[in-house]
Amino acid sequence: MTAFNRQIQLAAKPFGVPKESDFKLVESPMPEPAEGQVLVRTNYLTVDPYMRGLISGAKSYQKPVRPGDLMVGGTVGRVIKSRTPGRKEGDVVVGYWGWQEYAAISGDHGHLFDTKLAPMSTGLGVLGMPGLTAYFGLTEIGKPKAGETVLVTSAAGAVGSIVGQIAKIIGCRVAGCAGSKEKIDYVLGELGLDAAFNYKDTENHLGQIREACPAGVDVYFDNVGGTVSDAALLKINQGARIVLCGQIDQYNATEMPTGPRLLFQLIIKGARMEGFLVNQFVDRRDEAVRKLAEWLKSGRLKYRETITDGIENAPKAFIGLFKGENIGKQLVRVAKE
Amino acid sequence: MTAFNRQIQLAAKPFGVPKESDFKLVESPMPEPAEGQVLVRTNYLTVDPYMRGLISGAKSYQKPVRPGDLMVGGTVGRVIKSRTPGRKEGDVVVGYWGWQEYAAISGDHGHLFDTKLAPMSTGLGVLGMPGLTAYFGLTEIGKPKAGETVLVTSAAGAVGSIVGQIAKIIGCRVAGCAGSKEKIDYVLGELGLDAAFNYKDTENHLGQIREACPAGVDVYFDNVGGTVSDAALLKINQGARIVLCGQIDQYNATEMPTGPRLLFQLIIKGARMEGFLVNQFVDRRDEAVRKLAEWLKSGRLKYRETITDGIENAPKAFIGLFKGENIGKQLVRVAKE
Repeated sequence: MTAFNRQIQLAAKPFGVPKESDFKLVESPMPEPAEGQVLVRTNYLTVDPYMRGLISGAKSYQKPVRPGDLMVGGTVGRVIKSRTPGRKEGDVVVGYWGWQEYAAISGDHGHLFDTKLAPMSTGLGVLGMPGLTAYFGLTEIGKPKAGETVLVTSAAGAVGSIVGQIAKIIGCRVAGCAGSKEKIDYVLGELGLDAAFNYKDTENHLGQIREACPAGVDVYFDNVGGTVSDAALLKINQGARIVLCGQIDQYNATEMPTGPRLLFQLIIKGARMEGFLVNQFVDRRDEAVRKLAEWLKSGRLKYRETITDGIENAPKAFIGLFKGENIGKQLVRVAKE
Repeated sequence: MTAFNRQIQLAAKPFGVPKESDFKLVESPMPEPAEGQVLVRTNYLTVDPYMRGLISGAKSYQKPVRPGDLMVGGTVGRVIKSRTPGRKEGDVVVGYWGWQEYAAISGDHGHLFDTKLAPMSTGLGVLGMPGLTAYFGLTEIGKPKAGETVLVTSAAGAVGSIVGQIAKIIGCRVAGCAGSKEKIDYVLGELGLDAAFNYKDTENHLGQIREACPAGVDVYFDNVGGTVSDAALLKINQGARIVLCGQIDQYNATEMPTGPRLLFQLIIKGARMEGFLVNQFVDRRDEAVRKLAEWLKSGRLKYRETITDGIENAPKAFIGLFKGENIGKQLVRVAKE
């Protein structure tokens, strides 16, 4: 064990796409757990697009991260010292102690992760927040029925890749949108989607969607926003559901992005557009994890991780999200298991 | 009875705000009802914003009206000759036989209107399509609860004026947006809304909504779209519902209107935006009419009509909708009762 803890702090509020210099690596004394706490060692931390909002200084659903603050975010690691009866050394905890190698956290922070289900890294991916987001967003907001067409953006991403596969399990025709040939190959070949297109190939997204979804779109699961969403809105069917999960296309905007006013489409199609945060469903986590783990075990659900080693590379991994560098869940391995 | 029927046809596809020359008054032979039909004499016809879409040539939820076609739209009148056992002379029928003085219609076209409930003109207003639109849009899509804040645009209009009053009956705090001092006085004084603002007073709609809805907006019932809606979206509360009923702000656009991309608001607020057409609820018309008629009788629901005389003035009345000339339901009286 090192004598020091290392953590990543926000150095400056980013303008546009974050730069590595917007973050700094800081050494601090090793934390010491108080009575009722445990000391955890971080094995993985997750970088997610939503964090761009947290460091923007804008009012949102969560406390913003200001320059000088520890970067927040999901983490998984093992208890290495316990001062609470509920948790023991070796327990794997999924929590939210931020971008640091060690943390002294309350004995009831986060939740225990069962490594018999899957490797601990999945506690930040398919069996964690992104998996739950996909599961509840699709089934509770999108409510697809067998035979309907589902279109998902960021189809090779942490959430989108799970959405597409669950929609297939439900019996839908599923089309995916992604940003590279490698990703298209992945969603068609490995995930088994029915159609996929690379939005970088052309600006004619309407044509791409028409081809990928010849029967129109019943459920549009959107992680991206922007011009692909504009086109999708023009191809929705009567009674369509649009699940607003993310709008990564706009997170780095330096001025208010504009686009066509298309909401009349929702009127003539009697369609619903709904945003959600996975927190709304947090008390049903066990149900979702059980279901997702079952599908993993039976081979019906696959996942991929893109792993970057070293806490010092967390900013780079985070910035990579906005360049579309990852397939599946982007994680940072802080310490080998 | 005249020997001729007179009708308004579309003369040309309008560009931008329709002009009177986009319509023409045509004489045609008096229609003769066949077996199973009735001859009706039109007393009132209704002009509604949605008709702008029908004459634009764009694909929509209803067959478009092309140059040379009879203008379609809701009508109310009396049977003057019946060749079907189900309807007799003097019956008042609410139907959809278009902008003409007489029509030979099938015996099962439209529905009978009970003039003991209210004058027949209300069959095109508070007890007709606009009333049902308000009733179902608010209660089934908006689902406001007592104590919540409802904001409605076109608050003095045919639909908005009913929405605001039903929301008051439900026990909400209700704010209205309209486009003249006279309308503001009407919604505050006669309809009893809690707050109202004239969107023409300033471009700072955010400030207007902040003042009118100090606790934020739980249900936004939108008939208008555009910049007021942009501001409303920034003031919605957690779990808000946005009822998309109309987007009159955009119906005369000659190129695609653009605006800020604000859908991220729906994500961070876990909010729902839903469009609808009153047709979805047509099999529940009796329920709504009964409820609305009860409220009318008890004085809890008020309505106003703006009446233009003469079928030849129907185009002018229609065009007036886009200039905000009417308070309450705009009707054209084709024949005195």
